Amino acid sequence: MPARTIKLGVSMIGLGYHLANWRHPDAPANGNMSLQHAMRVIQAAERGLFDMGFLADGVGIRFHDEPKGALCRTAKNVQFEPLTLLSALAMVTRNIGLVATASTTYNEPYHVARKFASLDHISGGRAGWNVVTSVTDMEARNFNRDAAPGYDLRYDRAAEFVAVVRGLWDSWEDDAFVRDKVSGINYDPTKLHVLNHSGPHFKVAGPLNIARTPQGAPVIVQAGASDQGRELAAATADVVYAAAQTLEAAQAYYASVKGRMAKYGRHPDELKIMPGLMAIPGRTRQEAQDRYDILQELVDPLVGLGALSNYLGDLSAYPIDGPVPEPPNRRMHSRAGIFLDIARRDNLSIRQLYLSIAGGNGHRTVIGTPADIADAMEEWFHHEAADGFNILPPWLPGGLEDVVDMVVPELQRRGLYRTAYEGSTLRENLGIPYAAFGKAAYRPAAE
Amino acid sequence: MPARTIKLGVSMIGLGYHLANWRHPDAPANGNMSLQHAMRVIQAAERGLFDMGFLADGVGIRFHDEPKGALCRTAKNVQFEPLTLLSALAMVTRNIGLVATASTTYNEPYHVARKFASLDHISGGRAGWNVVTSVTDMEARNFNRDAAPGYDLRYDRAAEFVAVVRGLWDSWEDDAFVRDKVSGINYDPTKLHVLNHSGPHFKVAGPLNIARTPQGAPVIVQAGASDQGRELAAATADVVYAAAQTLEAAQAYYASVKGRMAKYGRHPDELKIMPGLMAIPGRTRQEAQDRYDILQELVDPLVGLGALSNYLGDLSAYPIDGPVPEPPNRRMHSRAGIFLDIARRDNLSIRQLYLSIAGGNGHRTVIGTPADIADAMEEWFHHEAADGFNILPPWLPGGLEDVVDMVVPELQRRGLYRTAYEGSTLRENLGIPYAAFGKAAYRPAAE
Ligand SMILES: Cc1cc2nc3c(=O)[nH]c(=O)nc-3n(C[C@H](O)[C@H](O)[C@H](O)COP(=O)(O)O)c2cc1C
Ligand SMILES: Cc1cc2nc3c(=O)[nH]c(=O)nc-3n(C[C@H](O)[C@H](O)[C@H](O)COP(=O)(O)O)c2cc1C
Repeated sequence: MPARTIKLGVSMIGLGYHLANWRHPDAPANGNMSLQHAMRVIQAAERGLFDMGFLADGVGIRFHDEPKGALCRTAKNVQFEPLTLLSALAMVTRNIGLVATASTTYNEPYHVARKFASLDHISGGRAGWNVVTSVTDMEARNFNRDAAPGYDLRYDRAAEFVAVVRGLWDSWEDDAFVRDKVSGINYDPTKLHVLNHSGPHFKVAGPLNIARTPQGAPVIVQAGASDQGRELAAATADVVYAAAQTLEAAQAYYASVKGRMAKYGRHPDELKIMPGLMAIPGRTRQEAQDRYDILQELVDPLVGLGALSNYLGDLSAYPIDGPVPEPPNRRMHSRAGIFLDIARRDNLSIRQLYLSIAGGNGHRTVIGTPADIADAMEEWFHHEAADGFNILPPWLPGGLEDVVDMVVPELQRRGLYRTAYEGSTLRENLGIPYAAFGKAAYRPAAE
Repeated sequence: MPARTIKLGVSMIGLGYHLANWRHPDAPANGNMSLQHAMRVIQAAERGLFDMGFLADGVGIRFHDEPKGALCRTAKNVQFEPLTLLSALAMVTRNIGLVATASTTYNEPYHVARKFASLDHISGGRAGWNVVTSVTDMEARNFNRDAAPGYDLRYDRAAEFVAVVRGLWDSWEDDAFVRDKVSGINYDPTKLHVLNHSGPHFKVAGPLNIARTPQGAPVIVQAGASDQGRELAAATADVVYAAAQTLEAAQAYYASVKGRMAKYGRHPDELKIMPGLMAIPGRTRQEAQDRYDILQELVDPLVGLGALSNYLGDLSAYPIDGPVPEPPNRRMHSRAGIFLDIARRDNLSIRQLYLSIAGGNGHRTVIGTPADIADAMEEWFHHEAADGFNILPPWLPGGLEDVVDMVVPELQRRGLYRTAYEGSTLRENLGIPYAAFGKAAYRPAAE
């Protein structure tokens, strides 16, 4: 058996994760709407033998324009739609997985099943679906609602949604299509399975009008932090994106999610947990810090306040260098409490708080030499906190290229990372099995 | 002003239009799920300087399995999802327009606006949306319903849906994004327009989270035959796909749709009417007929009955060489009456009726020399029956390559067709203007 190695993904939306990304001197300012830019990013990740490129998504702008003027000072406003962009990028890549986000709250399972199956065919087995339930009211307002549905309702619908999608992916057995010109038989009708799903949220007949996909079924990715989120991940996910700052928190999350898998008949290795990691390498620690500071110095206070407002509401009425007040309009977001705790613990001013989240937005951040970053990864990887990492470049493409050029070779030198892709599908590279007929289907929702 | 020239599109779904397409000796039997095949098709169309490749679509299988065994003998069962496929094909083409079908009955306008805008960006201004309302109950059953909503409801929703999509495409003015790294201003907030639509079917706030597209707005295509369909086309379409067998019928349709445009403040030239045309060229008429007969002889009777069942219900209980009976289960489809009339008029047997629709499925069919086909086009083009044609190849890729290699040069020789693309966007090639801000927006629905 080959040694267990670190899996790597990259968040490749727009111009990167940092609030000031587009103002970086070397960033293409129009990168969030440039196909050339997206090609350069995914090709850098593939050069780095990454398992997957990941496109976060919202069905609407997800950055509050509070205080007014915040939104027009960020690049977190426009972007390509993920499934169309990844279909295009499939044509200029060969091995890297292509993971798009799609919401279970504002979609229909038939569309989602079909589009991801189509991407899997187009890419030769490299598609993944990041399942999200869409937390913001801004998205809800684009879909006939004033506010996002309640938490339980969203997760209830999500569980049934995923089950329907998996059922639809099982419409056709692997060898259903015989296409015998002589007899005129195109497919074997005993190998077509009609779903006829009927549940509290969905009535979906099927079958899917696309053949079984090269991976059997696209990879399912989840990022839930809550109890329901973990349960859904344990039941259905192949990959989980997590957000943890400390080894202990990451270990607790890892144990919690993997511990729930047995009751769904799953082995812990069937799911890869990949915490977010903002890695900023430099030849020296000082160089790395200097690289980070370029961006930190470019954070417009309005944008910083805007970022905070996404969690705590608008704090612009308070002195920016004064203490963080009890938030006037705290939002329904799992990170709101975490950020407040940090502010209290470290006695941060409003400015210090927004600068502390300007980069990783609550994700672990490591600024240092390639060895420092490899150490940080290795520690979590070897101590049941991570199977890999979802790299969050502060800016693109440079922030990713630095990781590819500096950190990847260090990981390879340590035998922690592949030196060539193991296979041509995302499942092969992740080391998880082809989704055989019947295996991808319906799993019971959490009791 | 350059001479008016014929516009050409091609229906490029799967293996072509003929019922026996996949059994053609030279057809790749797996073509409906082969990316290589789709690339060969679109590249042939681009070699032929076609305005656009068009992907028909259903959100479900749209071919009844009646009598049982019909569906598994056709290739009209599985296909790529259009928006993902066209995004991929955008990467291997430069000039040809890319038109995908999307249903207004089973989608949300925000998703549709976004995905087509994204395709327009990816392709550098070559996206088009074929607006359909989805007539079959088979599709309805994949979306929480037992049957398609009634006609009026579908068209009412469609009119509002298109208005919302156009409104969303106007979220950002052309020059909204200034992206000034020095001042930190990414876009000019006075050039962002929030839709805040609220109507009987939709409540959609906007703005769209993607920039104004290279064409200002993707091209809108329509194919409605009914009164409501024509009204929607006159109000909103840039291109109309029509189905007519005779010059008189085509002229009547042409006059009817163009005649409705003035009340929406539109000039008749702003809309291109492109009837479907199955063109089968041969060096001689006999060769052309022989080419067609290869396919006709491969129509399995079950598949022929299946095709009829889509309009008239299952006729398998009647003698196949006997007269067409009063249909036991006639479906809600505008072509059902037309086919019945033809059967009565020409005294056709069931077999003769299905063979008569096995190719063009009710569309005009011309089998002959390149000059015959060019004559047929020229007649309609010069007599207010057509601005161009939507070529329906009986099989792919050969049926299209024959048109490109034989008919296109004949049209060019006559000065009826371009010898090079006029521009790089679909609008430029169609000769319709860029959709400037404010122009794409909200048109009133038909009174
Ligand atoms: C790395 C990561 C990426 C995420 N990407 C998205 C995204 O693209 N779109 C989205 O709506 N939510 C996204 N989320 C939010 C999660 O789906 C989820 O709502 C959040 O982690 C809170 O978890 P909970 O809903 O279980 O409380 C992401 C979360 C994480 C940690
Ligand atoms: C050339 C052509 C292409 C069409 N493509 C589709 C399609 O891809 N999907 C679909 O659901 N309907 C399609 N239709 C059906 C039309 O949208 C419309 O429902 C039909 O022409 C009947 O018109 P009516 O609804 O106004 O009666 C097509 C029609 C024509 C003539």
